[in-house]
Amino acid sequence: MVHVRTKIERASPESVEVLSRHSVATIHEAQGRLGALNSRIKPVDRAMSVCGPAFTVKCAPRDNIMLQVAIAYAKPGDVIVVSAGEYEEAGSFGDVLANACLAKGIAGVVTDTGVRDSADLIKLGLPVFSLSLCVKGTVKETLGQINADVIVGGELIRPGDVIRGDADGVVVVRREQADAVAVKSKEREEAEAGYIAAYKAGKSVIEVSNLAAVLAAKGLTTDE
Amino acid sequence: MVHVRTKIERASPESVEVLSRHSVATIHEAQGRLGALNSRIKPVDRAMSVCGPAFTVKCAPRDNIMLQVAIAYAKPGDVIVVSAGEYEEAGSFGDVLANACLAKGIAGVVTDTGVRDSADLIKLGLPVFSLSLCVKGTVKETLGQINADVIVGGELIRPGDVIRGDADGVVVVRREQADAVAVKSKEREEAEAGYIAAYKAGKSVIEVSNLAAVLAAKGLTTDE
Amino acid sequence: MVHVRTKIERASPESVEVLSRHSVATIHEAQGRLGALNSRIKPVDRAMSVCGPAFTVKCAPRDNIMLQVAIAYAKPGDVIVVSAGEYEEAGSFGDVLANACLAKGIAGVVTDTGVRDSADLIKLGLPVFSLSLCVKGTVKETLGQINADVIVGGELIRPGDVIRGDADGVVVVRREQADAVAVKSKEREEAEAGYIAAYKAGKSVIEVSNLAAVLAAKGLTTDE
Amino acid sequence: MVHVRTKIERASPESVEVLSRHSVATIHEAQGRLGALNSRIKPVDRAMSVCGPAFTVKCAPRDNIMLQVAIAYAKPGDVIVVSAGEYEEAGSFGDVLANACLAKGIAGVVTDTGVRDSADLIKLGLPVFSLSLCVKGTVKETLGQINADVIVGGELIRPGDVIRGDADGVVVVRREQADAVAVKSKEREEAEAGYIAAYKAGKSVIEVSNLAAVLAAKGLTTDE
Amino acid sequence: MVHVRTKIERASPESVEVLSRHSVATIHEAQGRLGALNSRIKPVDRAMSVCGPAFTVKCAPRDNIMLQVAIAYAKPGDVIVVSAGEYEEAGSFGDVLANACLAKGIAGVVTDTGVRDSADLIKLGLPVFSLSLCVKGTVKETLGQINADVIVGGELIRPGDVIRGDADGVVVVRREQADAVAVKSKEREEAEAGYIAAYKAGKSVIEVSNLAAVLAAKGLTTDE
Amino acid sequence: MVHVRTKIERASPESVEVLSRHSVATIHEAQGRLGALNSRIKPVDRAMSVCGPAFTVKCAPRDNIMLQVAIAYAKPGDVIVVSAGEYEEAGSFGDVLANACLAKGIAGVVTDTGVRDSADLIKLGLPVFSLSLCVKGTVKETLGQINADVIVGGELIRPGDVIRGDADGVVVVRREQADAVAVKSKEREEAEAGYIAAYKAGKSVIEVSNLAAVLAAKGLTTDE
Repeated sequence: MVHVRTKIERASPESVEVLSRHSVATIHEAQGRLGALNSRIKPVDRAMSVCGPAFTVKCAPRDNIMLQVAIAYAKPGDVIVVSAGEYEEAGSFGDVLANACLAKGIAGVVTDTGVRDSADLIKLGLPVFSLSLCVKGTVKETLGQINADVIVGGELIRPGDVIRGDADGVVVVRREQADAVAVKSKEREEAEAGYIAAYKAGKSVIEVSNLAAVLAAKGLTTDE
Repeated sequence: MVHVRTKIERASPESVEVLSRHSVATIHEAQGRLGALNSRIKPVDRAMSVCGPAFTVKCAPRDNIMLQVAIAYAKPGDVIVVSAGEYEEAGSFGDVLANACLAKGIAGVVTDTGVRDSADLIKLGLPVFSLSLCVKGTVKETLGQINADVIVGGELIRPGDVIRGDADGVVVVRREQADAVAVKSKEREEAEAGYIAAYKAGKSVIEVSNLAAVLAAKGLTTDE
Repeated sequence: MVHVRTKIERASPESVEVLSRHSVATIHEAQGRLGALNSRIKPVDRAMSVCGPAFTVKCAPRDNIMLQVAIAYAKPGDVIVVSAGEYEEAGSFGDVLANACLAKGIAGVVTDTGVRDSADLIKLGLPVFSLSLCVKGTVKETLGQINADVIVGGELIRPGDVIRGDADGVVVVRREQADAVAVKSKEREEAEAGYIAAYKAGKSVIEVSNLAAVLAAKGLTTDE
Repeated sequence: MVHVRTKIERASPESVEVLSRHSVATIHEAQGRLGALNSRIKPVDRAMSVCGPAFTVKCAPRDNIMLQVAIAYAKPGDVIVVSAGEYEEAGSFGDVLANACLAKGIAGVVTDTGVRDSADLIKLGLPVFSLSLCVKGTVKETLGQINADVIVGGELIRPGDVIRGDADGVVVVRREQADAVAVKSKEREEAEAGYIAAYKAGKSVIEVSNLAAVLAAKGLTTDE
Repeated sequence: MVHVRTKIERASPESVEVLSRHSVATIHEAQGRLGALNSRIKPVDRAMSVCGPAFTVKCAPRDNIMLQVAIAYAKPGDVIVVSAGEYEEAGSFGDVLANACLAKGIAGVVTDTGVRDSADLIKLGLPVFSLSLCVKGTVKETLGQINADVIVGGELIRPGDVIRGDADGVVVVRREQADAVAVKSKEREEAEAGYIAAYKAGKSVIEVSNLAAVLAAKGLTTDE
Repeated sequence: MVHVRTKIERASPESVEVLSRHSVATIHEAQGRLGALNSRIKPVDRAMSVCGPAFTVKCAPRDNIMLQVAIAYAKPGDVIVVSAGEYEEAGSFGDVLANACLAKGIAGVVTDTGVRDSADLIKLGLPVFSLSLCVKGTVKETLGQINADVIVGGELIRPGDVIRGDADGVVVVRREQADAVAVKSKEREEAEAGYIAAYKAGKSVIEVSNLAAVLAAKGLTTDE
């Protein structure tokens, strides 16, 4: 027997909103180089961008019955996160289910298997991040958990954690740390703006990154 | 000795035309989840779309002499289907041969090795589906069969079968089944339009897919 | 101890300029099918195009301290070529360092590891060719050589050699051969223009490529 | 509905016996460099060796219900050939089914998915060739054809064709050509014995392979 | 700052002992087809077998400083489980550290990166399961957690969980479930012994697996 | 035109002999973590071990004509090093050429493509290191250089450099540094013997590796 857990604690809309202003790369660094999913999980189109609490589902590889159940129970703003065995040769999500997601206000989908109908997904404007594009159909046979902790792209994702995806890929932020990570992300972006201004003002990377002493200590010499 | 077979039975232009209205994903499902080539074979650009009878050629890996022969004997509307050993590090087709194809009215090319001159291919508007983009040149040494049955992307393709490709990948339809598959594709699209309308009207995926009894029988319970 | 070599002999600006007029595929063929990097190294965006002398740097996998040093010492017009162990799951270069490159007039970056901030890289207009897009951060610990011969994508690249990249990938031209390769590239393009004109005039690939005798000698027969 | 075809025309026991005396590499060459399955399909142990007519079965990836049916209907001496979607992360065959095979006198199993209980398979002495060793269990849900033509490792295998496997991998021989291929295999081995004797007598590879004229015609010179 | 957690709750020696009597494949099935690590993680030699509580460590890719710390704090009988970024081109463990493990009575090592000195590891008799054999040395720079939950081979491993490895690969059993899984494993082995006896007595797989009704319900027919 | 260079400067037999006493892993570390070929290049059997000067040859992928030429000109004790495009699906070397090698006293073969007749290679006792085992035959069409610098497994190999291979893989040592590397290898082995003795005497890894201060400086704390 499998029980569907529908009541989860989600990161607050405020936390989601502030994190959505930062890129995946920035957030990954801001939280100590943690939480980035395997780089093979990419958006169907690089203009896609998503931020929302994870609504997790565990599917058997090549089986999307539980993904359908997940869509039925997810709430507006949720990002459905699918763990399905890192199988490239299956397309477990396409234009029909994308319409179902949009009708419910679901924010996006992240999956470690394939999706199809890519042209429609782009047209519909639903952000979808997947391991592959593949048309091969799936079965509807095997039950699996909803809102258990799942592993996708080598990272543990708990229901309610914040999922942020953009052209570079996907990162997960623990819901308890969302606000702190947003603060650090902002600080990091401000620091980076300073570095960029310094480069434009003619400063060297070694100066800006304060590397001279480190390099000398490690024994670097130059012929200039 | 190798004999070039030029007289093949092609799917009718009418069959090709009706199949061209349906997506690769729809056709794959409509014919019972069959015929989809491995998802690694993708269009050079996702706007590319092709539908036509297969004109098949077997090349040695890294050798395009028989592809040149195939272009010489293919007819307007044909899709040249190249089996060349699933080798990524070779570019056996580029802008010059693409011009030769266009001059003859060839509809497109599907290959399990690499192609090059991708910018030109896109500009020329010839739909090309390949395993990779690679500039590495090929030799012209080894003969191979024209219009034998070939295996490309893990699927058997017979000369004259219908090849349909779009942003998602490529599917093959047996020429004898082209019309029946087109009918089923149309039915499937109409059914899917109904599902989408139901989602927009607020119905749940579980209702629309009629999953409640199935899920209960499998033992699913929920906390709602 | 590691010594940074900053004084290298570069291909002349004139050589770089003439090579920049030819595609990667043409140059690869013109120099005898040599110099093409592994096809997995691709531009972040297919509109990216680069041509310039190589400024090489050897990084430990997942470590970009020497890439920062390279940016500090490279000259306007240089293409920074990074050998970092063919590791996909690291993003050793992004928008901040891209700004540093642009401020210095660096022509582009070619790397056998990942980069990040792809949207920014495209917006900034710096041509970047990499093995992957990955946000995972890198460390700054291990020294490595600047302007030693390096191996990237299975090809040896010497400092000062010409690096040419476009939508298809990347090719290296020895700096001593740059002018000769440019001449041969031009000849090849002119020959190809002739082939294309012949196709448009209705000639067969077998005629244009002069294949009839070769095919007969190899034993090819046809049923036409 | 799926119909199990049990009556197939098998290569004769005599054909199987003579082919079994030759290695996979020899047979592949003797039939014109044809029929070798993808090299990723390997024996569980390199001492394994098999030769017999193919009894084919098409399984859905991660599903072994039809493999069980195949075992029920296969005859003594048959090699069960499983097409299951080239999926590495599933173990669709293990010690229990291996005992079923042995009880029936089945000669061996070739599959393009994973198997498990490798230690037992070796102990039992049943030759098994697979894409991977993986313990992950499979489902029993989806029907598929028995004794249809299947594609395994990129090669078409028809029921009754001869399957020969050894430490190097697997090759298929069309049942109509089994005797002719056995004759050519013997000739090839005799020729090779002659080459080896010549090497031992101090002859050079260039002499033995008669390459001097070929190399000179291609323009090879040496500094000796 | 990183704090080393040394006090963990381990599965009892009794639980470990009973689980050690069952194979990885059996345990995986007995606990509901859960817990199997990715099949690319394999023993250095197929005779290797391990069972013990997990002592987990998170290393940066290409960095083994924390693995050394883990060896210092692990207890006799522990299996050190290393999460190091699924990087194949690094050898983070070899004969020297293997001797350190043996001196302490550590039961084995499971890692998602490479190891080296494979001949010595086999001679020493320490069971080691890894993603690759690779001699490339690692650095000692980046701290990481000891006895946090880690993800290895796509599975979550908590300190103290039971790690069982054999020729087929590795499975994790939650420490709370170790005894229940051992019971079910024993039941499964007994059932399997019954199936095997039935096969030897001439029963068909369809009879033994009780498949006739299922197959008929799914629509299978045969020509016998 | 291609000219075969047969006169190369080889590492001395004495250098080769002293290096042959050390493992690949030790030599790689002793020369500063340099020279290890990609870990996918492995011995056909893990008991294989080789040490000798490189006799290099560049083959087109799927073409072994130049490998035959190389065997004709190599000297007793040489290790033939083949660069053939990192192509797995070709078997360019087998039992016949292995006999040719043995007849000439060639020490071994290292290649970045496949080999076949693995059972015979093991029986014959010729050490062969390859990217794959594959029976698929090769052509004899394209000339290539003998004793040019080649890239194999991502490393530059010059003719005459020392090639050392064992169960772990292959490393190259520059011929000028062979003696110095042998000295350092010996020192390293002696140091490691000391570490192992210390472990056996009950010392902790942290003591033996002198890590306590380093770890404290990096901020590591423990709960013991």
